[in-house]
Amino acid sequence: MIPDISKEENVLPETPCLLIDVPTMMANIRVMADAAQRCGVALRPHAKTHKIPSVAKAQLEAGAVGITVAKISEAEVMAEHGIGDIFVAYPLVTPSKIERAARLGRRIRLIVGVDGEEGARRLSEEAGRLGVTFQVRLEIDTGLQRTGVSREQAAALARRIHELPHLQLTGIFTFRGALLEGKPTMELQRAGREEGELMVQLAETMRADGIPIADVSVGSTPTGLYAAQVKGVTEIRPGTYVFYDRMQAAFGVCSLSDCAAFIEATVVSRPSPHYAVIDGGSKTFATDVQPGTNPLQLKGFGHILEAPEAVLERLSEEHGVIRLEPHHPLKVGDRVRIVPNHVCSTLNLHNHIYFVDGGRVEKVPVLARGMLE
Amino acid sequence: MIPDISKEENVLPETPCLLIDVPTMMANIRVMADAAQRCGVALRPHAKTHKIPSVAKAQLEAGAVGITVAKISEAEVMAEHGIGDIFVAYPLVTPSKIERAARLGRRIRLIVGVDGEEGARRLSEEAGRLGVTFQVRLEIDTGLQRTGVSREQAAALARRIHELPHLQLTGIFTFRGALLEGKPTMELQRAGREEGELMVQLAETMRADGIPIADVSVGSTPTGLYAAQVKGVTEIRPGTYVFYDRMQAAFGVCSLSDCAAFIEATVVSRPSPHYAVIDGGSKTFATDVQPGTNPLQLKGFGHILEAPEAVLERLSEEHGVIRLEPHHPLKVGDRVRIVPNHVCSTLNLHNHIYFVDGGRVEKVPVLARGMLE
Repeated sequence: MIPDISKEENVLPETPCLLIDVPTMMANIRVMADAAQRCGVALRPHAKTHKIPSVAKAQLEAGAVGITVAKISEAEVMAEHGIGDIFVAYPLVTPSKIERAARLGRRIRLIVGVDGEEGARRLSEEAGRLGVTFQVRLEIDTGLQRTGVSREQAAALARRIHELPHLQLTGIFTFRGALLEGKPTMELQRAGREEGELMVQLAETMRADGIPIADVSVGSTPTGLYAAQVKGVTEIRPGTYVFYDRMQAAFGVCSLSDCAAFIEATVVSRPSPHYAVIDGGSKTFATDVQPGTNPLQLKGFGHILEAPEAVLERLSEEHGVIRLEPHHPLKVGDRVRIVPNHVCSTLNLHNHIYFVDGGRVEKVPVLARGMLE
Repeated sequence: MIPDISKEENVLPETPCLLIDVPTMMANIRVMADAAQRCGVALRPHAKTHKIPSVAKAQLEAGAVGITVAKISEAEVMAEHGIGDIFVAYPLVTPSKIERAARLGRRIRLIVGVDGEEGARRLSEEAGRLGVTFQVRLEIDTGLQRTGVSREQAAALARRIHELPHLQLTGIFTFRGALLEGKPTMELQRAGREEGELMVQLAETMRADGIPIADVSVGSTPTGLYAAQVKGVTEIRPGTYVFYDRMQAAFGVCSLSDCAAFIEATVVSRPSPHYAVIDGGSKTFATDVQPGTNPLQLKGFGHILEAPEAVLERLSEEHGVIRLEPHHPLKVGDRVRIVPNHVCSTLNLHNHIYFVDGGRVEKVPVLARGMLE
């Protein structure tokens, strides 16, 4: 758990702010890297959780082979800060983005996602025009129903992509983490194995068709290590594990004490015995997972360390309303620390965060924050 | 409505991005300023909607007396870019923020919110220590139950604040906009009048007690102009009107054609006849108002101009899944423009936006974006 820095007035950052407990983060990085190594799979963490090159470097130093991102703009930031092996796990379908990828691919090892015939054809044509060849992986939809080709159509599409010039289809990948929110551990194990088996089977079908599929990339924080135990899976791409969050703890994927990220906020008003108002609202805490609408029926927008029974029940942009037992001692000026529900999207709201390591506090810009392109 | 720039390939910004149609924005600014003038009230727009100094200047040029912000860091950015009259409508309760306010108050006209005895006492003590006097307004809770003193306790609290040194209590303010989401126009009229009457009555009680309340500041985009018609109301603080959004249109406060802000996104995948995937998700569209959980049961996360019957039904961080009629012609590479549900929090996700004025496109940084402190 994060050290008590509340007594060191001189190092206290202004609130609301996001603190990262460095020892907890480093332990999370190490544990996942060791587990991947034991399973004999490569670890390619999704950097969407932290968006910070120095954290990516810590993951690489612990044994990760490279990183994953969703957008070319994120890849550019990471490459600019020394990350040399990046998988953009997202279809690039417009000339300008493909050109940026081509430029980046001259400086680092870059792999690009494809998920459909039209997108692959566009990528191939632009690559030809630009005089480059892209290493690509085909995204498989294993149930999430967003990007990704269906399992039924995957082999035929792989064949057509394999035949396109300027593309080298060397892998397949999938993501189904969000599908499993709120499932018990037993079901996560089963789902992880199933994910691995489906993907290995598809890879074998493609190989039998003469397509040299080297990489079978799966998994998320909840399923990655289960999928990794399937023989033939070569890589996992968990993201959230670096910090974990209240959702993952509620899923049983980690415990609250593994959570390395906290919002620190100040009570600005105690207008009633029944509630207190803090200086962070929906600009501070992500609202993409709404309390009560998720499968776990999580109460409130975060877990309040100083008042675990209290509920952060309403957010407007700059106000967080905490429902309290009457006469709870929380008062104006008190600082509270809150484990956010979803750390990835919460981090995206913060221009900088604070690394806390014992008594040391370091302000760190979230360099790949807000990279939408 | 935003001009069709889709044919000018050379000026097309990368997607996803947020476009502002300048003529529509300027019309919104003018209409509100004229209406406030007709009612004989001052207009002090809340800058949380746009977070851009040049837009604040356009509001001032149209007749606004100053602007409103929620955080001292927002006030600092606005002051740095030439805005000289700012109301921080939020309690400042920590020494560091009060010191920043004192510093700012030496350069511009600054008014600060207070909402409770403890907060006011802290502000008074720090002001004394710093050798400044703050002009303050007392926030009244007219039903939203976040910050603000209850109507019953307001007069007694005003008396105690009036007696504190280094504070000049010159006004009262309230906000209840969010309470009225989804109410019909008749009820908004009634609520606006009620808001104005409550506040004027309180101001008169305080004046009878010898407190020189000059400013009675009310209102939001939905209620402001109704409250402004109550004699004794001196100021309104609407924010959203500058761009409007899908929620306000659904409330009947504006029409969709008054909306000046659009997300432009690209279709990156069409994996099924039933849905298309765009390159913007919860990092692009704010999720603080969840479809189906708001009083209007709005479908989806925005209104898609090119496919008004389609529903932007699911968002993950970088994926937006649009449910379509089978065989809808939307295809990979197509650009779509979407009116977001809540423009203020959506704008907060974008580092820069694009002003579109006829054929001219200008990239503008959202300078006060992400100012949490």
